[in-house]
Amino acid sequence: MSDLARRAEKLDASDELAAKRAEFELDDTVYLDGNSLGALPAAVPGRVEDVVRRQWGRLRIRSWDESGWWTAPERIGDRIAPLVGAAPGQIVVGDSTSVNVFKALVAAVRMAGPGRDEIVVDSSTFPTDGYIAESAARMTGCALRPVLPAELPGALGARTAAVLVNHVDYRTGRLHDLPSLTAAVHAAGALAVWDLCHSAGALPVGLDEHGVDLAVGCTYKYLNGGPGAPAYLYVRRELQDRFDSPLPGWNSHVNPFGMSPAYEPAPGALRGRVGTPDILSLLALEAALEVWEGVPVEAVRAKSLALTDFFLECVTAYVPPGAVECLTPLAHAERGSQVALRCADAGDVMERLIDRGVVGDFRHPDVLRFGFTPLYVGFADVERAARVLGEVLGGGLG
Amino acid sequence: MSDLARRAEKLDASDELAAKRAEFELDDTVYLDGNSLGALPAAVPGRVEDVVRRQWGRLRIRSWDESGWWTAPERIGDRIAPLVGAAPGQIVVGDSTSVNVFKALVAAVRMAGPGRDEIVVDSSTFPTDGYIAESAARMTGCALRPVLPAELPGALGARTAAVLVNHVDYRTGRLHDLPSLTAAVHAAGALAVWDLCHSAGALPVGLDEHGVDLAVGCTYKYLNGGPGAPAYLYVRRELQDRFDSPLPGWNSHVNPFGMSPAYEPAPGALRGRVGTPDILSLLALEAALEVWEGVPVEAVRAKSLALTDFFLECVTAYVPPGAVECLTPLAHAERGSQVALRCADAGDVMERLIDRGVVGDFRHPDVLRFGFTPLYVGFADVERAARVLGEVLGGGLG
Repeated sequence: MSDLARRAEKLDASDELAAKRAEFELDDTVYLDGNSLGALPAAVPGRVEDVVRRQWGRLRIRSWDESGWWTAPERIGDRIAPLVGAAPGQIVVGDSTSVNVFKALVAAVRMAGPGRDEIVVDSSTFPTDGYIAESAARMTGCALRPVLPAELPGALGARTAAVLVNHVDYRTGRLHDLPSLTAAVHAAGALAVWDLCHSAGALPVGLDEHGVDLAVGCTYKYLNGGPGAPAYLYVRRELQDRFDSPLPGWNSHVNPFGMSPAYEPAPGALRGRVGTPDILSLLALEAALEVWEGVPVEAVRAKSLALTDFFLECVTAYVPPGAVECLTPLAHAERGSQVALRCADAGDVMERLIDRGVVGDFRHPDVLRFGFTPLYVGFADVERAARVLGEVLGGGLG
Repeated sequence: MSDLARRAEKLDASDELAAKRAEFELDDTVYLDGNSLGALPAAVPGRVEDVVRRQWGRLRIRSWDESGWWTAPERIGDRIAPLVGAAPGQIVVGDSTSVNVFKALVAAVRMAGPGRDEIVVDSSTFPTDGYIAESAARMTGCALRPVLPAELPGALGARTAAVLVNHVDYRTGRLHDLPSLTAAVHAAGALAVWDLCHSAGALPVGLDEHGVDLAVGCTYKYLNGGPGAPAYLYVRRELQDRFDSPLPGWNSHVNPFGMSPAYEPAPGALRGRVGTPDILSLLALEAALEVWEGVPVEAVRAKSLALTDFFLECVTAYVPPGAVECLTPLAHAERGSQVALRCADAGDVMERLIDRGVVGDFRHPDVLRFGFTPLYVGFADVERAARVLGEVLGGGLG
């Protein structure tokens, strides 16, 4: 056994989160793609079966009340809230991330002061955010200004209505400084909208603490909600009365069963709801979130950094010099929970890794992406992944 | 046994669709609320279990390709297509009905000719359509004009950009004349957008035949897709190249994994996609649609009319004169697949019906709604429902 393998063994033995792995359905694959699709929590299959067979199959329509279907979007939002540093009553779950970006940006522009007619968007963001921001700008009469997060503070001004930034870059894994960027947006008199897809469940976000105005995120990465599970929308309590949705569906009406032809919005976070909630996916997500019981997000962050540090150390030891280039910042304050390595023939390399039981993903044109979900990835997994990468890239054992 | 009960027995014995009932999970309740939430098709639980345990749990990220997740929205759209009279390649499944109404109306306004700045909306429609139409009008600089369907032809003119009508009124069960209203909209030079929530799966729609421009619908009523199952969007083939979505998420990009910062829409119905599709709900719906194998929608319509005719006959026989007033038109050409009865204390009456095993629903302030799903409702059910209603309303046996 190599030194690194022994180190991994010790790290696993002292890992306070190690027992969480048993709450997921895993095999002997090293699954480092939880930043794309989280693994299956063991509580989900039984819950989904109950939702399908009993709640839908036997209670049918009665389940809207009796099984708590109607209130699921806000109840599950409250379950996500502590993971992103939000007090209850500010998050609703439903729709896709893209649809929620649209709600958040249009509502932000409508809340911005007069004369503010520019939406600033992180130009390095996941493309859908940029596409939707372009549509939101077009439909609200705003200009769209794509800017790199590092250049954001200098780009803000009296015209800025809203700023959309991705908390962690989906490609490089770079973590952007949410507190200071939010403060800069506020100093310019604009609203800050954050996309938490790659940070929620992997590190503390502190939405309330840092005064974030609006936020969106998906639930199928570090929150393990399942493929295409519904996304969520956070609206800071102080802004909720002014949240003017571009998608005012009947679920956001103050009296949805009054069937009034005149729209009157519900109070609170409910304003973020649109149409009938997607119950099967919502309740699968609710079961998935139970694994967070008693898990402080700070402990998750500490393990996440230990995992990525150890991975980088193992890569240095096992991979031939020059074969990969790390795109992920080394500074902890700038690192999410993934490591991106640039290398030649990355698509082919990833296929060979997967053949050998190490699953990450490939991002066009030359990036190997490895995501580390602290709830179920251990240090021995990390050592093995780096070792197999070294073998594939032609290195010996370090 | 009463005459009507004997008639019911004969009608059930000669019902070509009677065997379909065995493909649903039903008990001895008379379930007449399938126009709100369709009953559970027997194929669904096993499929969902496979999707959760094997496709997500074991294959994980590989399922996006290997289990056909990525192409589910258009594949399942093609499965719905024959039920609404559409050739393949014009329907995508995803998002809620409300969100699809927004896409359809905004896209319709953008396709309308110059000077057209008015959206006409069915004023008797399900409220969410009106709320969303109001938002679409506001965001495209249009006026919104609510009009009763009967008054539509006279309300159309050179300013009309798009017209949104519900095919079947959710409250009264009135069926609007899709061919003639669509022709009137086209004669005025506008685009016709139909909401099929209460007609798809219950009667022939003929989208292609009648030249409908855009249509939306839910899948949890007569299509039995499950609570909050994803809705769908139809875009007529000739319009697809000009379909300019207000929600241009990455799933509608011509090359979604190219991760280009510039949006370039995919060809065809794919333009209606937005974010990552909700796989659990989509694949539950796909399994639910298998019950339609070999079922001509014309046979469903014939049985639907026979069921509602027989129900009205039984109500006349069993319910004391004057105790209920039928809001649903008697003419077949004006009737969907539900019967709405106005009566005093309707909320209380419905509770008593449900206690006696007859499930319909109550719509504020005084309407009893009974939906007839021809795939699983039989004539004996109908006779029993009317008989129990008669008992509850104090009548004797007819």
